Amino acid sequence: MTSTPHPPYFAVIFTSVRADNDHAGYDRAAQRMVELAQRQPGFLGVESVRGADGLGITVSYWQTEEAIRRWRDEAEHRLAQQQGRAKWYTRFSLRVCRVERAWDFAADQ
Amino acid sequence: MTSTPHPPYFAVIFTSVRADNDHAGYDRAAQRMVELAQRQPGFLGVESVRGADGLGITVSYWQTEEAIRRWRDEAEHRLAQQQGRAKWYTRFSLRVCRVERAWDFAADQ
Repeated sequence: MTSTPHPPYFAVIFTSVRADNDHAGYDRAAQRMVELAQRQPGFLGVESVRGADGLGITVSYWQTEEAIRRWRDEAEHRLAQQQGRAKWYTRFSLRVCRVERAWDFAADQ
Repeated sequence: MTSTPHPPYFAVIFTSVRADNDHAGYDRAAQRMVELAQRQPGFLGVESVRGADGLGITVSYWQTEEAIRRWRDEAEHRLAQQQGRAKWYTRFSLRVCRVERAWDFAADQ
């Protein structure tokens, strides 16, 4: 799980349904995108889960909307986006959000 | 995947790590909370995925922040929240967000 600063900051909620194809290529690209995102200015973290039914939710956290725009326009990321639309995803939704309030809980050990 | 209206609307991002216990009781309560939430005024939808490693992401969508507060304070939901802290979750984070912009993609069939 991702530690984030006090709000406000920004989140991109990416929900998707994977087509059942090119698993190795997709996994390689997904790993590469995490590495690239981590080098972007304003990147705060990312969490990603995909279920056995192919539904996935990835949430990335960013300091500013400008940081999100720069990441959207990053060249290698743009190539991955093209492959996503052409091949990897049956459907997806992208939502850009402003995080207003946040809480954490950790159980006593 | 959830169809939502044009922004702005609100999202609650709930990320959690499940303790390895009470799977039947947890699944029953999770199903019940979805049913209850669907009856709440202002509820727009929910998406939830949990990975084999126990990390889960649930995103619920709401028309207003007031709808989120009413759901937080709903009596049976409060009991489930107590069980979540006492038993089901090792860690969790809750983030209340305002969705500013959104896009959908669907592949040609």
